[in-house]
Amino acid sequence: MRWYIIMKITKKLGVRQMSLIVQKFGGTSVKDAQRIFNVAKIITDTYAQGNSVVAVVSAQGDTTDDLIAKANEINKSGSSREMDVLLSSGEQISMSLLAMAVESMGFPVISLTGWQAGFLTQSTHQNARIKKINTERLQNELDKRNIVIVAGFQGINRYDDITTLGRGGSDTSAVAIAAAMKADLCQIYTDVDGVYTADPRIVPTARKLDEITYDEMLELASLGANVLHNRSVEMAKKYNVKMEVLSSLTKAPGTEIKEVAKVEKMLIKGVARDNDVTRLSIIGVPDYPGIAFKVFSTLASEKINVDIILQSIGRNGRKDISFTVCRAHKGQAMRILEDIKESVGAEEITCDDNVSKVSVVGAGMQSNPGVAATMFQALGDANINISMISTSEIKISVLIHLDDSERAMRVIHDAFELH
Amino acid sequence: MRWYIIMKITKKLGVRQMSLIVQKFGGTSVKDAQRIFNVAKIITDTYAQGNSVVAVVSAQGDTTDDLIAKANEINKSGSSREMDVLLSSGEQISMSLLAMAVESMGFPVISLTGWQAGFLTQSTHQNARIKKINTERLQNELDKRNIVIVAGFQGINRYDDITTLGRGGSDTSAVAIAAAMKADLCQIYTDVDGVYTADPRIVPTARKLDEITYDEMLELASLGANVLHNRSVEMAKKYNVKMEVLSSLTKAPGTEIKEVAKVEKMLIKGVARDNDVTRLSIIGVPDYPGIAFKVFSTLASEKINVDIILQSIGRNGRKDISFTVCRAHKGQAMRILEDIKESVGAEEITCDDNVSKVSVVGAGMQSNPGVAATMFQALGDANINISMISTSEIKISVLIHLDDSERAMRVIHDAFELH
Repeated sequence: MRWYIIMKITKKLGVRQMSLIVQKFGGTSVKDAQRIFNVAKIITDTYAQGNSVVAVVSAQGDTTDDLIAKANEINKSGSSREMDVLLSSGEQISMSLLAMAVESMGFPVISLTGWQAGFLTQSTHQNARIKKINTERLQNELDKRNIVIVAGFQGINRYDDITTLGRGGSDTSAVAIAAAMKADLCQIYTDVDGVYTADPRIVPTARKLDEITYDEMLELASLGANVLHNRSVEMAKKYNVKMEVLSSLTKAPGTEIKEVAKVEKMLIKGVARDNDVTRLSIIGVPDYPGIAFKVFSTLASEKINVDIILQSIGRNGRKDISFTVCRAHKGQAMRILEDIKESVGAEEITCDDNVSKVSVVGAGMQSNPGVAATMFQALGDANINISMISTSEIKISVLIHLDDSERAMRVIHDAFELH
Repeated sequence: MRWYIIMKITKKLGVRQMSLIVQKFGGTSVKDAQRIFNVAKIITDTYAQGNSVVAVVSAQGDTTDDLIAKANEINKSGSSREMDVLLSSGEQISMSLLAMAVESMGFPVISLTGWQAGFLTQSTHQNARIKKINTERLQNELDKRNIVIVAGFQGINRYDDITTLGRGGSDTSAVAIAAAMKADLCQIYTDVDGVYTADPRIVPTARKLDEITYDEMLELASLGANVLHNRSVEMAKKYNVKMEVLSSLTKAPGTEIKEVAKVEKMLIKGVARDNDVTRLSIIGVPDYPGIAFKVFSTLASEKINVDIILQSIGRNGRKDISFTVCRAHKGQAMRILEDIKESVGAEEITCDDNVSKVSVVGAGMQSNPGVAATMFQALGDANINISMISTSEIKISVLIHLDDSERAMRVIHDAFELH
């Protein structure tokens, strides 16, 4: 696949020319010495084919969890600044070990921490955003024909304090380098070999996609497809970084993510489900204007993200308002609802964890009203009840009972003939 | 003891005034959560007494060994640059954990890596010398009344690459900070509670010294007393940093190391032994001038440090030359001697590992000829044979059989009434 990409780039330019390829390897890809050598092989093969290579690594397998356990033994609420100092040591370990593996294979290599690689971030610890990458050192090392290994997930803020990027941080580090250095390709190596039309563990007939657009990938990611974190895809879209998701263990081609994917016959790109969802309901509020505003503005002021909203048609002057939030926000949202229960005149507050959000994603869906019909028909035929519906330009999501979610994915996958 | 020091400083200045105290804690002092809290208690007690505190920490207990094992699994001869990246993560872990412990006790604290604390070193990896400390950040944090925790053993060179300081590096880091910031005291917390007249495990009647001069400490350190590394004492002497060696586990006063120690009745400060020594002999070389020069200049050109030298009186036109080297240099020294054996006309090259160097140390020894006599008498009475002797202004060393070394320490200790 790597050859395939190089050939394509070469063909386009008319001459064989050196490409800059950024490769990202997650924690499981470097979890032990054997896996580290496997990664070193991928990197050095790419380099040996005449490319410049920047490899971004996460901390080894369980290192982050081990470090968090050490911290919890001492202080369960250690400051986020010191947690960042602690956690950032994880990539420092994996990057130097990977560099030593590459050295042992006889290639020139250098490892760089976040600050050495020029990652400047906002000041927020534990969830910092990248502001800028000073690429001078990176470029110097590439000019020397070094393979450059960079610690993912970390940077420094304007106080020279170490920051970490939060969930999916290493993917974001890789895309940020690719954007800053105008790389030809940003490869994200993971434990799956690409983006599928559905989770293959649930839908055995799921098919790997060769290509997908940024927007479709964003919908799939946020819908729980669990391959890439949204922040990295958003950044790739913004800076037009061509990404590829592929496995570090197989040699199979992966899935390319780029602005305009090849027009495929298939309209629907995939089916995803998200079980990290809770439905909350405010039962029997008076059917006056402004009630919904009061509920959702209070939730918003507490930074609780509300997903699907359903407001029942008023009956006897009263109505119900239901909405979903992610499970981490359930407790806080419940407390807020209990607080305002009286002032909005609600009869009861309820919540339901036994729900799952199942979605179909595909560009141009809006202009194809048949999609919703096909989806609802499939669910109806399978006797699966839809409790809430939400749509966007490129997706349709339904909230169903948790027990039905896997079956729902399969019948939808079949109905759209994604296999 | 800490109170005692503060009181003394206060008395000298006439008013109670804030002191800057640098405290260094080794790997065993922070090996687990319990020990980390013990260290946090020492630091915060010192701070609560109104002092500014900079704490320098090593990596936790076995961390360094674990990291080296990880590296060896991948590349037994990984570059020293990448080893420094790897090993320096150890202090990053211990310093953040210690900071979290201090946080949990309600004190303001910040941890700084080597580069954050401004440690600029020479470029040599694994054994870099400190060139300079940019104290701006350290001073800013102290001005904010933060307790500052600094990673020992590490810095960066002029390429912004991470370096480590080699053996005894954290002691040197602490003294360097104390020198750069003109600290009132540099406390080295270890697992012994001070400097003794002899190793208490060997000489049960050994007595802890209240004070010792830099020169005496240097001789004791290089003679195997194993309390402080020479580099840190040399630096303390050069910048006149008052040091104190004390235990992190007891509240007992330690030993102060400073330019002019209180005149004590006792002339001899201590007895030390060094078993890391091998005797090499060139037997039967012609008794011509220039032979010794040829031998020792060749060894010097290979950077082999020769300690005690004994040249026998010529007999039948031939003589023997014996000298000691540390055991790590034995193989190389033997090869050099075998190489030049023929050209110097030697009959035989021999070596003996069953030797030990036992020394007495004390300032002003030169003007007291009785010291050597007392020492040799004690050894003679104990039937211990002396094979080589070496003297300096403040020490007398003898080479004896390894089996006699502990007994020799005890009889010398008794003879000088050091108990």
